[in-house]
Amino acid sequence: MPRLADQQKDFPQWYLDVIAQADLAEYADVKGCIIFKPYGYALWENMQRDLDRRIKALDVQNAYFPLFIPASLLAKEKAHIEGFAPECAVVTEGGGKKLAEPLYVRPTSETIIYATFAKWIASHRDLPLKINQWANIVRWEMRTRPFLRTLEFLWQEGHTAHATKEDADAMAEAALQMYVDFDRDFLALPIVTGKKPDHERFAGAYYTLTTEALAKDGKAIQAGTSHNLGQGFSEAYDVSFLDAEGKAQRPWMTSWGVSTRLIGTVIVVHGDEKGLRLPPPLAPIQVVIVPIYKSDTERDAVLGEARKLQESLGKTVRVKVDDRAEKSPGYKFNEWEVKGVPIRLELGPKDLEKKQVVVVRRDIGTKSPLPLDACSPAAFEALLADIHRTLYEQAKAYMDEHTTTVETLDAFKETIDGKGGFVWAPWDGTVASAEAIKAQTKATIRLLGEQKATGKDLVSGAPATATALFAKAY
Amino acid sequence: MPRLADQQKDFPQWYLDVIAQADLAEYADVKGCIIFKPYGYALWENMQRDLDRRIKALDVQNAYFPLFIPASLLAKEKAHIEGFAPECAVVTEGGGKKLAEPLYVRPTSETIIYATFAKWIASHRDLPLKINQWANIVRWEMRTRPFLRTLEFLWQEGHTAHATKEDADAMAEAALQMYVDFDRDFLALPIVTGKKPDHERFAGAYYTLTTEALAKDGKAIQAGTSHNLGQGFSEAYDVSFLDAEGKAQRPWMTSWGVSTRLIGTVIVVHGDEKGLRLPPPLAPIQVVIVPIYKSDTERDAVLGEARKLQESLGKTVRVKVDDRAEKSPGYKFNEWEVKGVPIRLELGPKDLEKKQVVVVRRDIGTKSPLPLDACSPAAFEALLADIHRTLYEQAKAYMDEHTTTVETLDAFKETIDGKGGFVWAPWDGTVASAEAIKAQTKATIRLLGEQKATGKDLVSGAPATATALFAKAY
Repeated sequence: MPRLADQQKDFPQWYLDVIAQADLAEYADVKGCIIFKPYGYALWENMQRDLDRRIKALDVQNAYFPLFIPASLLAKEKAHIEGFAPECAVVTEGGGKKLAEPLYVRPTSETIIYATFAKWIASHRDLPLKINQWANIVRWEMRTRPFLRTLEFLWQEGHTAHATKEDADAMAEAALQMYVDFDRDFLALPIVTGKKPDHERFAGAYYTLTTEALAKDGKAIQAGTSHNLGQGFSEAYDVSFLDAEGKAQRPWMTSWGVSTRLIGTVIVVHGDEKGLRLPPPLAPIQVVIVPIYKSDTERDAVLGEARKLQESLGKTVRVKVDDRAEKSPGYKFNEWEVKGVPIRLELGPKDLEKKQVVVVRRDIGTKSPLPLDACSPAAFEALLADIHRTLYEQAKAYMDEHTTTVETLDAFKETIDGKGGFVWAPWDGTVASAEAIKAQTKATIRLLGEQKATGKDLVSGAPATATALFAKAY
Repeated sequence: MPRLADQQKDFPQWYLDVIAQADLAEYADVKGCIIFKPYGYALWENMQRDLDRRIKALDVQNAYFPLFIPASLLAKEKAHIEGFAPECAVVTEGGGKKLAEPLYVRPTSETIIYATFAKWIASHRDLPLKINQWANIVRWEMRTRPFLRTLEFLWQEGHTAHATKEDADAMAEAALQMYVDFDRDFLALPIVTGKKPDHERFAGAYYTLTTEALAKDGKAIQAGTSHNLGQGFSEAYDVSFLDAEGKAQRPWMTSWGVSTRLIGTVIVVHGDEKGLRLPPPLAPIQVVIVPIYKSDTERDAVLGEARKLQESLGKTVRVKVDDRAEKSPGYKFNEWEVKGVPIRLELGPKDLEKKQVVVVRRDIGTKSPLPLDACSPAAFEALLADIHRTLYEQAKAYMDEHTTTVETLDAFKETIDGKGGFVWAPWDGTVASAEAIKAQTKATIRLLGEQKATGKDLVSGAPATATALFAKAY
């Protein structure tokens, strides 16, 4: 197998090499689209299963809305169409004929879902209405990168309607918290959360909450967002309900989503010079057993023990025995390392003699013998939990080391162009200042802090109205 | 709730009424597209979960390929493009610009998947290669009907490559058998299976196997298909492998799929004058408990017992307590009947006195008391299994009663225009005879029998080469 590019020297190439060598995805014949190969798709399936459970626990029901949105329907919410129409794929022919009205391939589904909510909602008894959909999405991106930015991607989008602003606030917050929990417990991802500044919010939203992770090259990556959409979509799509007093009211909407971008996020946060490192809950294979042998007799003995181990651990852990005869143990070690399998067990004739197996941890690279009679499912569950914790703590330590607070533009530039990462800085709340910083450093405001603003804006020198978290971003 | 149209007198309107009143789906703003409402989508989710397990048991791995297929790629297999291009939606603009090459929205994914297989397959060691994808599909249908024929639908499509014809035969057969098992065990659907005549096979296939169910209006419904695609796609997309002797060979492909059409199939096979009847494995709610009370005291006692029942049965059965205060028991009975819930439990103060619950079976409408201390999960599992068996047997009896063998065109017409259903008849193997029958009766050949042909073709009088199963079809 060819070596990966050096993660320190050429992070973008390293990223592409990991995706190729871990067999996650490849580019398709359509520019900007990828093919999710089985190992890459398995990551999405695992995420889906866990997230779907969390979504349903918020009393949200799954449904499915059409891929195509008539141009006139998309156009009803002005800010929304301005934000999305330029990135849309447009169907102009169908069944061999030119269409009277072009159809947009959904770039997100607020419009078609809220047009439907108008039919479903009549009374305050119909609220809250909470719907989620798993779907494919198309946005015409010019500069693509597998998983992180592709023309077509897969996601879930939650859409809810509520009687009051407070209910919508609580829902947007609950969805955000669900993502925080999922990121931590399933992906071992530490994140920072907060509100986007108005000029960075979702097209048509009242406000946008975001979860931001930090890649190992010091760039921020938006992992998921949750929007309180206010009453704008209710107005645009004429959604209304009669309150308990019989008065017509506009519901408040929220929407929130995460996508296959999370696969890219896991790669850039946890990956190392040897390839992927998968958090155990996400890993399609949690433990791989590599048998080592020279003769057929050794082979039978070693494989027999490997199967016994697989059977006993397999009750609660996802175990694979790599019994390919045509590949050497060294080749297998390398392959499962690049594929990020959390634990490798090496088992040879000497190990059988000593009644042990050699345990190699992918997170920290340690290699240590474990008596065979200590190989209980519970022992491996505990080990996997420790690996998960370690991955989280390593990523958290990196994030902490790469989070800086500055007071001056010079310090800001030095940090952004130096070690990179997140930079907290005072901001006067103007787009002009944010744009000036972006022009000079490529850094944008990822979110606003909740702490009281102090100091002066780096560009204008005006008193800060907020402390903003800046970073270069994917 | 409005009454359903009479199933005997106006089956098409009854079908639409059931879908509306059971809250399964509604038409969207895009002509021919439907919105899967939560209760309808839950049916698809349940099917997916069970089928996905069966697919993986065949050593097939999930992956995901792009929605868009470049026109030049689709065009490479001649029979395939001729069959599908006229039904395609075409994207001609993206990102605000006219595209140099139009993109087809996938009407099925053979082309893009086999173009990719060309990169993945090099040696006989890479075979068999077995991939499945869960995806949305678009075919520009003019005459649509929810679930049964829609512009966009959801499905799974399996795609495999094999070294030999025999391996591909075995795979196509294994996929068909998986559908037969799934139809019987999960959907309580009896079906007939067999090979399509050549003029009805999938565009580009070597042969097509089909599963055909029979709706209660006497029309056939193709529930799933499995194709041995031969080597045509291998040629068209230049897929080859080196065999054990180092000689270049073309692999044999298969593809097979079922779609959200299965939801429509369940409705038209099992539905009755009161609405849906769901087979228990498919039912999102298997047992609904309707509390009956007049006073608050009664309410507390009855709901308390209902919750206890829910908790004990809920270990293995999907139970809902319908505790809506604003709806009457009669309204609830009607709603859960139209929604096809297999078992309704009625629980009132008199039942509490007698320490019993009243069990109402949706399949046969019986109503009988059951002592509360006999309400074990095992008892309800057995009852649900009996309901499943009963639904299957009722549908099988209907199919048997509506399967006729004829020798003459007069008898054929009398049957097709009379009781309808499946009609076995001798066929001379010519398209001309099949077309003549279709022109006169609207019946088409659903599949060919395996029995030896006897008798003479109904139209030409020539000796039969096959016994064909004819029916009017959805």
